[in-house]
Amino acid sequence: MKLVFVRHGLSDWNALNQFTGWVDVDLSEAGLAEAEEAGRKIKEAGIEFDLAFTSVLKRAIKTCHIVLEGSDQLWVPEVKSWRLNERHYGALQGLNKQETAEKYGVDQVQLWRRSYDTLPPLLDPTDPQSASHDRRYANLQKSRVPMGENLKVTLERVIPFWEDQIAPAILDNKTVLVAAHGNSLRALAKYIEGISDEDIMGLEIPTGQPLVYELDEDLTVKTKYYL
Amino acid sequence: MKLVFVRHGLSDWNALNQFTGWVDVDLSEAGLAEAEEAGRKIKEAGIEFDLAFTSVLKRAIKTCHIVLEGSDQLWVPEVKSWRLNERHYGALQGLNKQETAEKYGVDQVQLWRRSYDTLPPLLDPTDPQSASHDRRYANLQKSRVPMGENLKVTLERVIPFWEDQIAPAILDNKTVLVAAHGNSLRALAKYIEGISDEDIMGLEIPTGQPLVYELDEDLTVKTKYYL
Repeated sequence: MKLVFVRHGLSDWNALNQFTGWVDVDLSEAGLAEAEEAGRKIKEAGIEFDLAFTSVLKRAIKTCHIVLEGSDQLWVPEVKSWRLNERHYGALQGLNKQETAEKYGVDQVQLWRRSYDTLPPLLDPTDPQSASHDRRYANLQKSRVPMGENLKVTLERVIPFWEDQIAPAILDNKTVLVAAHGNSLRALAKYIEGISDEDIMGLEIPTGQPLVYELDEDLTVKTKYYL
Repeated sequence: MKLVFVRHGLSDWNALNQFTGWVDVDLSEAGLAEAEEAGRKIKEAGIEFDLAFTSVLKRAIKTCHIVLEGSDQLWVPEVKSWRLNERHYGALQGLNKQETAEKYGVDQVQLWRRSYDTLPPLLDPTDPQSASHDRRYANLQKSRVPMGENLKVTLERVIPFWEDQIAPAILDNKTVLVAAHGNSLRALAKYIEGISDEDIMGLEIPTGQPLVYELDEDLTVKTKYYL
């Protein structure tokens, strides 16, 4: 039973060095090229997907489409969910990382970036940037729309999607692609590999490099490797 | 209640003047531009989709993606089905239209192209080009995989998808995009507009021009217009 993660690559905000989170920033030219390379590797490896999962953010969706097209399987069914979104970066979204460090201090910014359970400053729900104004999240009660997440909170909203959609597909012998983000994939990796709260922030899944898990029938990891 | 059709534009085989059908030919540069223009028109019209349907052929899928991206709604859920595929052109697939006319006569080719219920020469199920060898149709029994269709047969496999997926979504007040092909859209138009067998072949839905239907609660057409 096979599961493949692809983390999307560079976006337009990487050059600007800004916190992104749920802001729906596009892939840059370099990010498009990373997705194409991932598609080529999957084609070379002869991996045939039955089902693809992605977030509701275009940088992951486009990565999903480019990987499927590049491996001659754009027809594969695809399910999009906000539960696979990047970690919500709260009021830091849109701020320059360097300027944020100058304002709050390097240590505080490191804590926001690298701690498992420290929340970033929260966005005000009335802020125009709040996702509660966006119709793609209309299925969530306003009070359930994230205003800022740490990895712990991210994991808590990712795992129901694993349990309800991804795991059943794998148990049904489907080969599954998950094209998503650094932190939603990190949350999934923590869960399926059983990584501790302390160690998980050290796990960095490289962008654009397909990560293949082969799983046992109880969904434990038999082997994992990068293409 | 709103339903929008977008017929995909020029493919790589238009320049070659070949019968295409179920062959998974890509959009040409001109076809990509047609899809982008359709996306711009939908954005200008302010149409917000809740659900998108497309075929399992990449020229329709890419049109769907480009239209959604161009109207800032790439996150909209998408369902792909072989039932929205182009009419299967049987043994004519891959043949040059001019050469076919020289071989079989212009009248015969016109009949294959313009008759509602004349079948094209059928593909042999053992032909490597047969869709029964393609895993995207693995859900169909071999004997159910089309080897050549007229519009009548196309309509008979399109309508179950209308009944089971598209119509329920519209009745649920969803605004729906269908990005598909000349003949699968013609079959849907025949059904929802109640066009006769005689008149339907005269209906030509232009490529890349969004066709908007506004429907009553019993799914009859109140008004239709092109953007």
